[in-house]
Amino acid sequence: MINDSGPTHVEETVSETTSDTAQLISNEASSSNYAQLNRSVTLQNSDDDELNGSHGVRRRHPVQKIEPGSMNILSAKYESLDYDTCENHLLLDEERKRGYPFIVWKDIARWFVILQIGVVTALIAFIIDICIEEFSRIKYKQLKKSVDIYVLEDKLYIPYLLWVLSNICIVFFGSVLVSYVEPVAAGSGIPQVKCYLNGVKVPRVVRIKTLVVKAVGVITAVVGGLAGGKEGPMIHSGSVVAAGISQGKSTTFNKDFKIFHYFREDHEKRDFVSAGAAAGVSAAFGAPIGGVLFSLEEGTSFWNQALTWRTFFGTVVSTFTLNFALSAYHGHPGELSYPGLLNLGKMEPFPFQFYELPVFMLFGAVGGILGALWNYINYRLAVFRIRYVSAPWLRVVEACLVAAASATCGFLMMFLLDDCRPLGEDPTKNPLQLFCADGEYNAMAAIWFQTPEESVRSFLHDPIGSYKPWSLLVFIICYFLLSTWTFGLAVSSGLFIPNLLTGAAWGRLLAILIQYMLPSNSINPAKYALVGAAAQLGGVVRMTISLTVIIIETTGQISNALPIIVTLVVAKWTGDFFNEGIYDIHIQLAGVPLLGWEPPPLTHTVYASEVMSHPVFTLRTVESVGHVLELLRLVSYNGFPVVDPPLSDHAEVTTYKRLRGLILRSQLIVLLQNKIYNENANTTWSNLNVDMNMFRKEYPRYPSIDELQIEEWEKSCSIDLRPFMNPSPYTLPHRASLPRLFKLFRALGLRHLPIVNDVNEVVGMVTRKDIARYRVWRHRGHMGMEELLLSSEI
Amino acid sequence: MINDSGPTHVEETVSETTSDTAQLISNEASSSNYAQLNRSVTLQNSDDDELNGSHGVRRRHPVQKIEPGSMNILSAKYESLDYDTCENHLLLDEERKRGYPFIVWKDIARWFVILQIGVVTALIAFIIDICIEEFSRIKYKQLKKSVDIYVLEDKLYIPYLLWVLSNICIVFFGSVLVSYVEPVAAGSGIPQVKCYLNGVKVPRVVRIKTLVVKAVGVITAVVGGLAGGKEGPMIHSGSVVAAGISQGKSTTFNKDFKIFHYFREDHEKRDFVSAGAAAGVSAAFGAPIGGVLFSLEEGTSFWNQALTWRTFFGTVVSTFTLNFALSAYHGHPGELSYPGLLNLGKMEPFPFQFYELPVFMLFGAVGGILGALWNYINYRLAVFRIRYVSAPWLRVVEACLVAAASATCGFLMMFLLDDCRPLGEDPTKNPLQLFCADGEYNAMAAIWFQTPEESVRSFLHDPIGSYKPWSLLVFIICYFLLSTWTFGLAVSSGLFIPNLLTGAAWGRLLAILIQYMLPSNSINPAKYALVGAAAQLGGVVRMTISLTVIIIETTGQISNALPIIVTLVVAKWTGDFFNEGIYDIHIQLAGVPLLGWEPPPLTHTVYASEVMSHPVFTLRTVESVGHVLELLRLVSYNGFPVVDPPLSDHAEVTTYKRLRGLILRSQLIVLLQNKIYNENANTTWSNLNVDMNMFRKEYPRYPSIDELQIEEWEKSCSIDLRPFMNPSPYTLPHRASLPRLFKLFRALGLRHLPIVNDVNEVVGMVTRKDIARYRVWRHRGHMGMEELLLSSEI
Repeated sequence: MINDSGPTHVEETVSETTSDTAQLISNEASSSNYAQLNRSVTLQNSDDDELNGSHGVRRRHPVQKIEPGSMNILSAKYESLDYDTCENHLLLDEERKRGYPFIVWKDIARWFVILQIGVVTALIAFIIDICIEEFSRIKYKQLKKSVDIYVLEDKLYIPYLLWVLSNICIVFFGSVLVSYVEPVAAGSGIPQVKCYLNGVKVPRVVRIKTLVVKAVGVITAVVGGLAGGKEGPMIHSGSVVAAGISQGKSTTFNKDFKIFHYFREDHEKRDFVSAGAAAGVSAAFGAPIGGVLFSLEEGTSFWNQALTWRTFFGTVVSTFTLNFALSAYHGHPGELSYPGLLNLGKMEPFPFQFYELPVFMLFGAVGGILGALWNYINYRLAVFRIRYVSAPWLRVVEACLVAAASATCGFLMMFLLDDCRPLGEDPTKNPLQLFCADGEYNAMAAIWFQTPEESVRSFLHDPIGSYKPWSLLVFIICYFLLSTWTFGLAVSSGLFIPNLLTGAAWGRLLAILIQYMLPSNSINPAKYALVGAAAQLGGVVRMTISLTVIIIETTGQISNALPIIVTLVVAKWTGDFFNEGIYDIHIQLAGVPLLGWEPPPLTHTVYASEVMSHPVFTLRTVESVGHVLELLRLVSYNGFPVVDPPLSDHAEVTTYKRLRGLILRSQLIVLLQNKIYNENANTTWSNLNVDMNMFRKEYPRYPSIDELQIEEWEKSCSIDLRPFMNPSPYTLPHRASLPRLFKLFRALGLRHLPIVNDVNEVVGMVTRKDIARYRVWRHRGHMGMEELLLSSEI
Repeated sequence: MINDSGPTHVEETVSETTSDTAQLISNEASSSNYAQLNRSVTLQNSDDDELNGSHGVRRRHPVQKIEPGSMNILSAKYESLDYDTCENHLLLDEERKRGYPFIVWKDIARWFVILQIGVVTALIAFIIDICIEEFSRIKYKQLKKSVDIYVLEDKLYIPYLLWVLSNICIVFFGSVLVSYVEPVAAGSGIPQVKCYLNGVKVPRVVRIKTLVVKAVGVITAVVGGLAGGKEGPMIHSGSVVAAGISQGKSTTFNKDFKIFHYFREDHEKRDFVSAGAAAGVSAAFGAPIGGVLFSLEEGTSFWNQALTWRTFFGTVVSTFTLNFALSAYHGHPGELSYPGLLNLGKMEPFPFQFYELPVFMLFGAVGGILGALWNYINYRLAVFRIRYVSAPWLRVVEACLVAAASATCGFLMMFLLDDCRPLGEDPTKNPLQLFCADGEYNAMAAIWFQTPEESVRSFLHDPIGSYKPWSLLVFIICYFLLSTWTFGLAVSSGLFIPNLLTGAAWGRLLAILIQYMLPSNSINPAKYALVGAAAQLGGVVRMTISLTVIIIETTGQISNALPIIVTLVVAKWTGDFFNEGIYDIHIQLAGVPLLGWEPPPLTHTVYASEVMSHPVFTLRTVESVGHVLELLRLVSYNGFPVVDPPLSDHAEVTTYKRLRGLILRSQLIVLLQNKIYNENANTTWSNLNVDMNMFRKEYPRYPSIDELQIEEWEKSCSIDLRPFMNPSPYTLPHRASLPRLFKLFRALGLRHLPIVNDVNEVVGMVTRKDIARYRVWRHRGHMGMEELLLSSEI
């Protein structure tokens, strides 16, 4: 099976000192002599560039030039999370000392943390909602006043300029914040949260600074009149809240509350972040069950019942707190009638007939096609941005341009489309007469002079004759284009609301068409508007079960479930025929090494020996400080196999690298930082006063190796790694297949996987990027496998 | 860490022939010399009894006598499912030959199978529903007629006897069927399905015979007037349908349709069964989303997005088909107003205030306590049954006794409780005047003279004055006791409906109390009846999120979600304080080695070397037929490590057992059966015309070793195991901890896990039972770990 090109014949060099880099590598290489494995890469390949950031991935196709915006590149800059417990002596000691009461206590603490996450997420949602509502009210009241005044004087350019200017100013502020202060706060944040839950460390994504920028950013985006919603950002906000509260410390404020030490590990943190994301969904849509399903459908890989129950508790607390706060704010304390930010209004249950199912399928297909188109345009725009609009100031200018364009679209529509409705039938907040007769108001102005969320409500609930087909068509085209342009700007805003709005509009348009064709029946426009909204959103994001539940919970009507389910499933199928969901497109563009749900098919003949990185840099169980220091400075790997020390009396086994354990860079750094080493090798660790908290204190951001102050004389000291290393890491033999690697990696959330040969010697290391490189593509019924390139440039 | 008691010093015996049992064992033992591992069991322990059925689990506490009905025993009779793919050469060949089109084809076939599962499950639900409805209508109509006649003659004992007799006859028929034809069809089937999804092969649980007995059994149980429902059995039925359709063959009818060969493996089958269970829930409750959540909350461990989507599709198809069929049957074709078997009737949204939350919590606590009590009584009854009512005829007698008791309870209540209601307010099907005045009818008779499901509806929807508090109290006590007695009888019936009924009754009683205490408010009894029903059921089964969704979908009202959620969470917490959910209790009683969600805490100091079974029985890569035959006859293990053959020129490595792969008993049997071996060892497998279908043909019931006809001369032939074995099984080192073993086992669904030493020699095997033995208990805030005993007697 293994393409046995023979071992590389490197001269054996047994050196006494290990401080010399060249000798170190040579040392490594000599062991390959024993590993007797296929080595397609010779030693000369392991230059610094190649090693940067990942376990020396072999480039089979040498890259001449990496095209920015390509979908076939993995970025080397992302680090992975590690969900595997390091079962070292310190952990065992802690277990022994604290016993079962500690387990019970941790369990209670988890519920308590979740409670806090729910409450705080809801309060943030409350503040964002109130700000947007109040500022929008003021803005549109002023604009209406100005229009009312200047329409009589025939100076409509004044309110127009006022509108454009106010949009630009507000968006400018938010965009500057996002571009210059925290770029990771741009967009909805859902792709980033998805990556985090998948096990990829997206830098700064769960910091408090990000949360503040996100919250302010989303207020400016919505008040600034952009075609964006506040729901996606709420999901991101919930995640940040969860990370912050569960860790009991904040990097932004450099403050350590000295609580919840025991939650400071990747696994616990991820669990809380997933609950936080769910709480965010729950607050955004008033959908506690939808929230749980969202975090499952988009994030988690391992289903854990206890975690799901806690998540559910968090979503219930979140929706309940928000409900309570909003009800109190709106003057109905105790009534609990405002479950979420997005409130589509009470839908009536709409009866439907068997023969209507094809109609819903048609809606699904239209939604799938339009969604795929939306994704395609957005993808092209994103590539354009990556190539030509990468400077922060350009990003700000672009955001302002879109803000101006949004106002212009709205103004032109009001001005040119003469769509008048009699007052009183369906009360709008700011009825604008414009050119309409007395007692009438401009229907387009009613749509534009409110937040997009209110517009969705209008489309859902207004009676059938409220909008002229032509107005709807123009609105759909405009808003469709505006919303694709908006998603990806340097502002914080989501795509749920704009897509619901577009979908509701074309759903209503189709309802009018159906009414026209079947004049005998009386059509319920709400039904078709809702189904259209669901289809459009489903076509873009390609969620099915969680989106169904979210829409059901948002509309408060379960009897409409079946039409929505049918529509969403068809929308997903249709959309998937053309391209992937919008979040996946953006994740691929960013080159994130996301692991899919299943290993790529037909890869049973790809072996670990081909996938792994090698040669491996190993440490001995008792290692000199100088060597450790040298190694950490030389390579940027994050995990090192610990191997048996050479037995000096057996000449032929000098370079045996029998695996004894695995130690992480972060652990080594903490050991060096705290000077946990001895001048003579006989002192054992138990004499040292160390426990797990030494490592937890620094989590998750450890100092870099260059920040450590190590004196020259210390380099001859020795570190006993045995008490700190993970003594039994998961391993696989070199003849294991890629699916086998993949399943182990995915199911257990590993970060490093040592590959061993038949006698348990380490011959390679596999990290997430090595596996994520193999990706399956499906396109219009065809499928295949592609091997991505790895680059440290994007 | 490892308690090194030193290797056992057994004399090395290198024998030429391997047919001698003693030598075989001795051979095995000699290798332990090299393994140098802690051996708390000496070789003398490995007697036949001990080896029976599992990898020689060491009994640390010698069992004097196994008490039937103990909760601390694991049964050795259960085999495990294997979700790990055997990546042997045949599979690689098949992949190479068929390529991507086959992957696409399999994917399409999966959707098609799911579609069939949904439709067939719904049709079975339809038939069961119609039968129950029609037979019940006839039965109660006759009874009513009889009462109406004999009440005037003062000969009420005649209708009473008629009632008792009809109950007994019907139940007798069903009970005989269950006891003598297919005992695994007893009860709701949910525990069995749960075990199957967890990875335990419960014998005969997904056979068509089981389905037939289950379907007939549930009709007789409900028509026979037992306190049982048809919803649990529907879930089991869905699972059987899924297993049958996906495998394209039936063991019951001994028919192979020669389709879907490629789905004949444990992994694919499990996925379909989980979808089938979901389709069953969906048909039972008209709850497509609840169905998906049920199969997740109760079954699956690994969340797979694609599987979830398919499951969702199946549940939608199922509920839709049932809806269509029932609507057509009831004369409203195309109207789709009968989504599920259980139809609680359209609930009105009930507004609730903030201050009502404590009331819901109180309901939850009551439900939790009553549920725990219910579970306790049922547990004691189950233990009693195991000890004293194990003969089939006794089980039938017991079922008939309960049938008579049910009728007696009902009759006494009608007769003694003088609860009359005016006719016409809430139409009941069979209004019985009995001793009431003209124009009135007996309220208790109205409850008893209909199916339990209709009674739930009555309690939910009847106005507040409909029942006297005393009648309700008596009814609650009677029905509570009857339903605990019924669950566990040798009949097919579930516990959802009886518990909903009891809960709705006490919810209504509490509503009357609250009304009495707060006479100013007008209380909505439906609200409290529903919350009570949810609390009682939640207290018994301890599901939260799926039960919430099921109740929401069944009542068609999402606005009641928050009260139900709060109630269910409190009910679960309260109940968990006392004991476990009823399904888990029954699973533990059956001694099923179910793996929990997480490894027991504080077990990082339990090492693989203690958990594993040893010595290990290994095979060489090329092995003689005689040896294989001998080994298969000698031990009943299901997997054997394949190790390097001894190198004859190195004396000291003669007994090296370096792991090369893993082969299953079933594979060996198929190889022997098809005589895939050669007289001389040079012929390789590629000359033989074998492919994967040879193995799939026999799946899942392979012949036993004694059924094979092997001539004496054949024993000297040799089998090359390499093309058939799994070349890279997952392994762990002997120093790996129990949590590490557990996570690997649970996440990847393994069946066998070879344990290796530092030089990759096999030193032990771990199977599911070895891990499931370590169980955590939590009781009233305390927790600890217990080690279960393993027995082949229960």
